Amino acid sequence: MCVFCKILNGEIPGSKIYENDYCIAILDISQTTKGHTLVIPKRHVENVFDLNKDECRAIMEACVYVSNKLKKKLGVENINLLNNSGSLAGQVVMHFHMHIIPRYENDEFKVIQPSHEPNFDELGKLKDLLNS
Amino acid sequence: MCVFCKILNGEIPGSKIYENDYCIAILDISQTTKGHTLVIPKRHVENVFDLNKDECRAIMEACVYVSNKLKKKLGVENINLLNNSGSLAGQVVMHFHMHIIPRYENDEFKVIQPSHEPNFDELGKLKDLLNS
Repeated sequence: MCVFCKILNGEIPGSKIYENDYCIAILDISQTTKGHTLVIPKRHVENVFDLNKDECRAIMEACVYVSNKLKKKLGVENINLLNNSGSLAGQVVMHFHMHIIPRYENDEFKVIQPSHEPNFDELGKLKDLLNS
Repeated sequence: MCVFCKILNGEIPGSKIYENDYCIAILDISQTTKGHTLVIPKRHVENVFDLNKDECRAIMEACVYVSNKLKKKLGVENINLLNNSGSLAGQVVMHFHMHIIPRYENDEFKVIQPSHEPNFDELGKLKDLLNS
């Protein structure tokens, strides 16, 4: 059984700060930044490909609730939401989780996201493929 | 009017690959990786703090739909979902958007997410604060 399922069934403790019908939110024990939280569906869903509609709603509502709680209690005004689906995307625990990462001046979290000059020919082909 | 509102009202073109009642998904013109998509609520919502329940459901459902479309059409099996809320979190266009970033071997996207040794005393205090 995966570590999140063990937290969900009470086998190991978790710092729960929110719960609804389909997910919970717990503090990440590694606290990349202060207030770092994970939103986790109750069902053992591996990744983004397999979430159902109830989980979609519940997970995003949890993200909004927790974000506003972090704002109210810790003064957080900047946040990254991050989901890693698949090993190549950095997923370690193979049970879907959305990271809520409060951001502060000069913190240690960093995203390197290169952009490329738009290639409208390629974009058009890709759009057609994905609409087919 | 922000660039996403201009795409939404048709003033400037966008490569739309999905739409539901509350959001659209378009290809990001900078294509950090092939298939890089943005999910954007139709209402001009600045960031995660202000999403309503309909938008929560719609945005996450769009993420799941697009992820599976990328899997089917491009063979994508690894994905990051990323939202930047606030300048310190890397937000540039001040209209909420969730990045869907397909991941490939040796691609250019990178997340640096340091973890810290668990401090259970601090976690307990934080849990109590956020539950108050």
